[in-house]
Amino acid sequence: MIIIGEKLNGSIPSCAKAIANKDEDYIKKMARRQAQAGSAFIDVCASLKDGELEAMEWMVKLVQSVTDCPISLDSPDVNVILDAMAFCDRPGLLNSVSGEGDKLDLALPVLANPENEDWEVMALLCDDTGIPKSAAKRIEIFDKIMEKAKEFGIEDKRIHIDPLVEMLCTADEGEGISMLLEVMAHIKATHPNVHISGAISNISFHLPERKLVNQAFAALAINAGMDSAVMDPLEKDLRGVVYAIEAMLGLDDYCMEYTQAYRAGIFGKIKK
Amino acid sequence: MIIIGEKLNGSIPSCAKAIANKDEDYIKKMARRQAQAGSAFIDVCASLKDGELEAMEWMVKLVQSVTDCPISLDSPDVNVILDAMAFCDRPGLLNSVSGEGDKLDLALPVLANPENEDWEVMALLCDDTGIPKSAAKRIEIFDKIMEKAKEFGIEDKRIHIDPLVEMLCTADEGEGISMLLEVMAHIKATHPNVHISGAISNISFHLPERKLVNQAFAALAINAGMDSAVMDPLEKDLRGVVYAIEAMLGLDDYCMEYTQAYRAGIFGKIKK
Repeated sequence: MIIIGEKLNGSIPSCAKAIANKDEDYIKKMARRQAQAGSAFIDVCASLKDGELEAMEWMVKLVQSVTDCPISLDSPDVNVILDAMAFCDRPGLLNSVSGEGDKLDLALPVLANPENEDWEVMALLCDDTGIPKSAAKRIEIFDKIMEKAKEFGIEDKRIHIDPLVEMLCTADEGEGISMLLEVMAHIKATHPNVHISGAISNISFHLPERKLVNQAFAALAINAGMDSAVMDPLEKDLRGVVYAIEAMLGLDDYCMEYTQAYRAGIFGKIKK
Repeated sequence: MIIIGEKLNGSIPSCAKAIANKDEDYIKKMARRQAQAGSAFIDVCASLKDGELEAMEWMVKLVQSVTDCPISLDSPDVNVILDAMAFCDRPGLLNSVSGEGDKLDLALPVLANPENEDWEVMALLCDDTGIPKSAAKRIEIFDKIMEKAKEFGIEDKRIHIDPLVEMLCTADEGEGISMLLEVMAHIKATHPNVHISGAISNISFHLPERKLVNQAFAALAINAGMDSAVMDPLEKDLRGVVYAIEAMLGLDDYCMEYTQAYRAGIFGKIKK
């Protein structure tokens, strides 16, 4: 599982406060903890209207002062993401591109530049009409994204797709997450090397005991092909469930990775 | 999910002690708690070499003194199970029959008796050769059981099948639980009204943080059609994950059952 650590995001109140107060220790501590917990990327999202690029630079440099973990540059403004690439010491992830506006037209040429060949990209399956309600429409956006990516010669393995995880509590009657699973099945069938990703905790908005819902969703999503996720790498029980599911799917012989992760304190009770 | 509460079993040390000491309060308390937590059946297994039937009678009567929840009569000796039916105030479950010896030949005629038409049965997919290692062999036993059940006119909905959940840590390389899922798929495809069951916690033997492994397994098993389980109804996080999975599979519109179970204290933090 490719973990994109989600905790440095200005939409989280404690992080917004740290950004506002220029609290360097908070940023560094969160970066260090997420890296130590095995994040493949550390997401950096300032979530500011004014001064977003400057905040991004400040955050990226602080993260890089404590870890070599690649950065996931995250903003609703694709130009901010592309400009912020200059702050990065090493290739990372462009998060989030989508079928919206000219995002793809701006991001894909940059990814196609041989200098950026190790950069990856996260694409969301929405467009100018918003978040599609049907699997067919999301699949249509996916197909368009992949077509454009092919034109620019971007390899499938550099692409993460977020099929858009939405809250379960408002799902249509009798539907559950069937629409999402249909989109995932299409991705896996047509582009097995594309990473299926998503923000796991979106599933549990407005429900009690959100962690259990997140764990249940992760199990079904990994079973359907999810191999990348925007998630909290410090949510221990979720980490344990993810390792367990991987073992059940035959990806961890004799549960060796599960057991090692437990011994390393990735999940389970705190060991002294 | 049809829950067969597993806590009154002489193979659990504290329960063995209660049986040895004739501790009525222990038996009654465990029966009451499992019933209140929503068990469909309360399993009663004395797990004794000598005096098993007498212990069974003592346990069954104590359970029935505190709850109307039907009993799951559990013994490796099918004659003990059949004799113990006389102690039951209402129809329950015969647990565990299998392809072994003359178990089916003894149990099926009893189930076919019109007087016992509301009794159900749990059949394990093993036979005189032991626990088969291949899906093909387990499926063969399943097909034989169903053929015999048909001869006796036992309806599919009265039958629970335990495909035999085994510990994950010794699964063959690259296999995970794929064999078990194959057996479940066969059951669901050929007999959609048969209940797919199993002892969830068997999956996690010899692994740390067993509860997380149990939760992960429950998610994949329910997704594959499991709708009955021998489990601990008091394991709150597991209960929450089961409700969440059911909602994701479209079986719980707007998460109403999930939310109600939470409010009732079936899972989640203890409410005052």
